[in-house]
Amino acid sequence: MNKLLASWENLCTSSAVLRFIDVTLRGIGQVMFQDNPLSGLLFFIAIGWGSYAAGVPEVAVGGFVAVVASTFTAYWLRVEEASLRAGLYGFNAYLVGLALATFMTPSTMMWVYVVLGGAVSVVVMLAITNVFKTWSVPALTAPFVLTAWLLLLATKSFSGLDGGALPPVGMIVPIDPAASDPLRFGDFVGGVFTSITQVFLKGHGPAAVLLVAGLAVNSLASAIFAIVGAMVGVITAHLLGAESQLVTAGLLGFNPVLTAIALGAVFYRPGPRVVVYALVGTSLSAIVQGTLMAALAPFGIPTLTAAFVLVTWLFLLPGLKLE
Amino acid sequence: MNKLLASWENLCTSSAVLRFIDVTLRGIGQVMFQDNPLSGLLFFIAIGWGSYAAGVPEVAVGGFVAVVASTFTAYWLRVEEASLRAGLYGFNAYLVGLALATFMTPSTMMWVYVVLGGAVSVVVMLAITNVFKTWSVPALTAPFVLTAWLLLLATKSFSGLDGGALPPVGMIVPIDPAASDPLRFGDFVGGVFTSITQVFLKGHGPAAVLLVAGLAVNSLASAIFAIVGAMVGVITAHLLGAESQLVTAGLLGFNPVLTAIALGAVFYRPGPRVVVYALVGTSLSAIVQGTLMAALAPFGIPTLTAAFVLVTWLFLLPGLKLE
Amino acid sequence: MNKLLASWENLCTSSAVLRFIDVTLRGIGQVMFQDNPLSGLLFFIAIGWGSYAAGVPEVAVGGFVAVVASTFTAYWLRVEEASLRAGLYGFNAYLVGLALATFMTPSTMMWVYVVLGGAVSVVVMLAITNVFKTWSVPALTAPFVLTAWLLLLATKSFSGLDGGALPPVGMIVPIDPAASDPLRFGDFVGGVFTSITQVFLKGHGPAAVLLVAGLAVNSLASAIFAIVGAMVGVITAHLLGAESQLVTAGLLGFNPVLTAIALGAVFYRPGPRVVVYALVGTSLSAIVQGTLMAALAPFGIPTLTAAFVLVTWLFLLPGLKLE
Repeated sequence: MNKLLASWENLCTSSAVLRFIDVTLRGIGQVMFQDNPLSGLLFFIAIGWGSYAAGVPEVAVGGFVAVVASTFTAYWLRVEEASLRAGLYGFNAYLVGLALATFMTPSTMMWVYVVLGGAVSVVVMLAITNVFKTWSVPALTAPFVLTAWLLLLATKSFSGLDGGALPPVGMIVPIDPAASDPLRFGDFVGGVFTSITQVFLKGHGPAAVLLVAGLAVNSLASAIFAIVGAMVGVITAHLLGAESQLVTAGLLGFNPVLTAIALGAVFYRPGPRVVVYALVGTSLSAIVQGTLMAALAPFGIPTLTAAFVLVTWLFLLPGLKLE
Repeated sequence: MNKLLASWENLCTSSAVLRFIDVTLRGIGQVMFQDNPLSGLLFFIAIGWGSYAAGVPEVAVGGFVAVVASTFTAYWLRVEEASLRAGLYGFNAYLVGLALATFMTPSTMMWVYVVLGGAVSVVVMLAITNVFKTWSVPALTAPFVLTAWLLLLATKSFSGLDGGALPPVGMIVPIDPAASDPLRFGDFVGGVFTSITQVFLKGHGPAAVLLVAGLAVNSLASAIFAIVGAMVGVITAHLLGAESQLVTAGLLGFNPVLTAIALGAVFYRPGPRVVVYALVGTSLSAIVQGTLMAALAPFGIPTLTAAFVLVTWLFLLPGLKLE
Repeated sequence: MNKLLASWENLCTSSAVLRFIDVTLRGIGQVMFQDNPLSGLLFFIAIGWGSYAAGVPEVAVGGFVAVVASTFTAYWLRVEEASLRAGLYGFNAYLVGLALATFMTPSTMMWVYVVLGGAVSVVVMLAITNVFKTWSVPALTAPFVLTAWLLLLATKSFSGLDGGALPPVGMIVPIDPAASDPLRFGDFVGGVFTSITQVFLKGHGPAAVLLVAGLAVNSLASAIFAIVGAMVGVITAHLLGAESQLVTAGLLGFNPVLTAIALGAVFYRPGPRVVVYALVGTSLSAIVQGTLMAALAPFGIPTLTAAFVLVTWLFLLPGLKLE
């Protein structure tokens, strides 16, 4: 595998087009923290598959267009080369593109919006990175969340932007206990799989296999923590009495997936104390996902990965030595 | 008094159990900025009394369980020893425990939640402290406010968590002028007393005597500014035409109490210009309490001490030399 | 012109009263980034004219009272002399005064509030400036936005404060496409003019001439970017299908005006890449104005210049070298 990647890297050195493709794929890989074009490729295929299966191929195209726009923007802004090459200016754009194409009705204006969103996400990434490096903490997917919230909420004020698939605006309604069923084994497995694909805003269980493979080719620990994170998320949400349908659709598990990878495998080196710390954070991010679903109800916008960002920031900012 | 505390400190040096108790009591004392186990003990008794008198002893127990959980967590995370011993990882937990037990209906899940809240408040304290030390400003009770908001708002999304005593969710309703009566002397005195006990989420006038005593044993200035803060809060709220019942219950005065102690006696040394500055901040925190009551109406969660945190941060961040 | 200003500066050196007037006028000039008493004077006359024409002279008086209160406060707090003389502690106060007098019904309490708001805005300016200098980014009008939001939202909780002219509290209602008409030339020109005067919360087209003159006497680039910003704002809002009445009243264009001046003429030196960057930011701030109008609907408070602050911060925080 390493040999293959080394030859690919050689090819990229000699071709600007291949380098552009490499940077774009790494950008997609960085959605789950993998600085590896093969991870990016597998994620890209997984999301293409999930979008196609759901009858919304424009979602995968939206992600692609936005990430390409972000790569151009990053070059134009002459950002620092090493970060650019590692795909750090692409992952937020990819998610912005997926989100805009998921929650908006396709139109010319939507595509303009996707390009704008991809480009602006680079500026927002630079801004948030600059602020948080003060405490040696990364921006995570905060640029995606902020950019997408700004653009999606604006659809309510402009008749040329149709956010037809956004959650309804309304007052917070406490959960109906009847919506919370006992967890069956099949639902549990399904919930774990869709929790992994919902990281990319898709509830398509089978594609999770490709995503886990994309993690494993670069970092076995990341693959394991992704699965454990999904399980912890599903179990926490279920124990607390979440709506069963949400759990099974993976909507309470994708933030825990990201939190588990980040705290367990990326920003700390795995070890007994790190595992405990990561599991508490992972479980908390399932709870905070519930918090944010309530908090955003009056605004009619999705929570995206805000719970992951908030909890992971809180768990990284102390700068603890846990190893 | 100093001799008594010195012998106690000697005892703590020789016993891990006594040290644990000392740290826990200092944690309770730090709710009002007092690094003194005797202050903590008096506060603890006051809140126990107030809870018992109101028929909700579980509130006092909730605070106790959470602060103990936080002390264990702080040791496990190997935080810096001096801060730990000063009780700086306990006061937010104590308030989180009181808040969860006040606004939730008791159940096994609530107790799990209280332990989780106490533990997580330590991480949040470390995070916020690390951010704000950039500007030499303390975290205040922001970790309490953030942790409690996250956990309380999540109750709306999970049927296993019953936030039965939370404020109702609803649109902001402008105050009815009829709810604002002329202030009678008895109500004024009552409002001042309950403003002090509401710092610990309890509206029990007599317990205020113990709280003021707990302040006075460590810092006479703190005791005086607490009383002045309560008076300024009650007067400001009343002059602006707040609902009389809220004023008398101390719900518009507890933030001013904390702001007055912080600005008047803790973070600046008392002096003529400091007094003016502190009084303006104190009065403003009564207004901002009104702001936050409106801001949170759509979410159905309490304001807690957010007004104090916000105003005190704004008045400390300039780093002025007022003495 | 320079000679005139030099003689005026000489006069100010010899008279504390003239210095006070100079600082106050520069404070008004700084609303649009101009450290020039003549700019301030022209802005002051423009707003007086606009207020008088609209039958609300108290608005202009409110701004004046608040900026005077802020100058006194800044002296009392012994802030750094150079910033004070440049009017940096006045512009937020002036806007706070205009906003309070615009959205509240006049009463004794309102005037107390205007003085308080002017004074507090100095503390908030110092606080936000101190935080953002960590990343070499200015506070912009964030102190105005925060102070005015805190004070205006509080009116809902106090019967003695009458926020009678605040936007209604309500759920977000998606825009009715019928409210979006094709743009006629006259409306376009009107929208550009009122976009410039709405920076000072006034929709009075003719006064825009005085404002542009006030810019031009100190910085021709600022005058040009103000007009371009207004045009970009009006065009962006219209293309996206905003409510025509809002566009014509300048309510979607004043944030772009400020963003264009800030990014195009003040914080970067004009050049081809800067112009592209500034125009994207300007257009985005029209979109974000739509976002914030939706976000604040449940709270019934105006967006003020929050869109400008947010977008300009995001576009300055990267610290890019674009020249």
